[in-house]
Amino acid sequence: MKRIASLVVVLAIAAGVLTCFTPASGEAAQEAVPIFGIKIYPGYRDWRLISVAHEEGNLNDLRAVLGNDVAIKAYRADKLPFPDGTVIARIAWKYVPSEENNKAFGRAQSFVPGDAPEWYLQFMVKDSKKYASTGGWGFAQFDKNGKPADESKHKTCFPCHEPGKDHDFVFTRYAP
Amino acid sequence: MKRIASLVVVLAIAAGVLTCFTPASGEAAQEAVPIFGIKIYPGYRDWRLISVAHEEGNLNDLRAVLGNDVAIKAYRADKLPFPDGTVIARIAWKYVPSEENNKAFGRAQSFVPGDAPEWYLQFMVKDSKKYASTGGWGFAQFDKNGKPADESKHKTCFPCHEPGKDHDFVFTRYAP
Repeated sequence: MKRIASLVVVLAIAAGVLTCFTPASGEAAQEAVPIFGIKIYPGYRDWRLISVAHEEGNLNDLRAVLGNDVAIKAYRADKLPFPDGTVIARIAWKYVPSEENNKAFGRAQSFVPGDAPEWYLQFMVKDSKKYASTGGWGFAQFDKNGKPADESKHKTCFPCHEPGKDHDFVFTRYAP
Repeated sequence: MKRIASLVVVLAIAAGVLTCFTPASGEAAQEAVPIFGIKIYPGYRDWRLISVAHEEGNLNDLRAVLGNDVAIKAYRADKLPFPDGTVIARIAWKYVPSEENNKAFGRAQSFVPGDAPEWYLQFMVKDSKKYASTGGWGFAQFDKNGKPADESKHKTCFPCHEPGKDHDFVFTRYAP
């Protein structure tokens, strides 16, 4: 009887360990970012497209901006401010020429996503109470391995977005 | 009594006119493209993201490539050829600087979607029987008003995609 009890305890611990360390949907055991406490949203890569952009300079990336259902609904209704529950995801890839496309076009003109830069994945999360001191938005940045950027990086998010106050601190517009 | 009958006739005609000219979901009364007979797929703007790109030169656009469920599944499984039922949508917007973003970044570096060019919307549709003579793919191009490009334009689609035979005639790769 004692042996069975021990076995049950061992199995329970094993189950607990498995629960903690088995990534669900490949993104679990996920670390939250400093300050805002945001984790990667599972399934964000399936969200609908808001827009795309190219940043030159030090960033030199191509980016896609996706939105959860609340975000897409708000964008399409063209109504500000964004409601609580809005989550906007920004994915960036290095800006690289496509030799294959250039051959097809017959000239060097085509740029496509390359490797993931350090600033691969960002989220803006609307929660007007929780994030009242930063315009109602929480900010998060992760690298391609899901590692959050550090606290000093996250301190730069809101100051940079502050000039966008007239559009509820969101720069990206909906591309129809 | 005659006056009421006339009114009914007038109302019926008005209703008919409204039925003809009111686009359902903004895309009805949709004309098919020449050669391939493809119409705009309703709801394509809700499809998931495959990748993004920037084309320089005469095109000078930013583009997003979306896929229906069959396309996304095939891309993520990284398996060629694409199965019948695959539909890939390509939306292009003029490549324009964002003054607002540039102010926030403190330098001119940000490019975003502008107006729709003539080549706004394209589809590639996999049907290995129907489109056997063009690698199993049907091609379609529409402007922002849903107007199909002409026959001579559609004759250029497959010859341009032919060099991509090793990737089942599809240039765009999945951006993770």
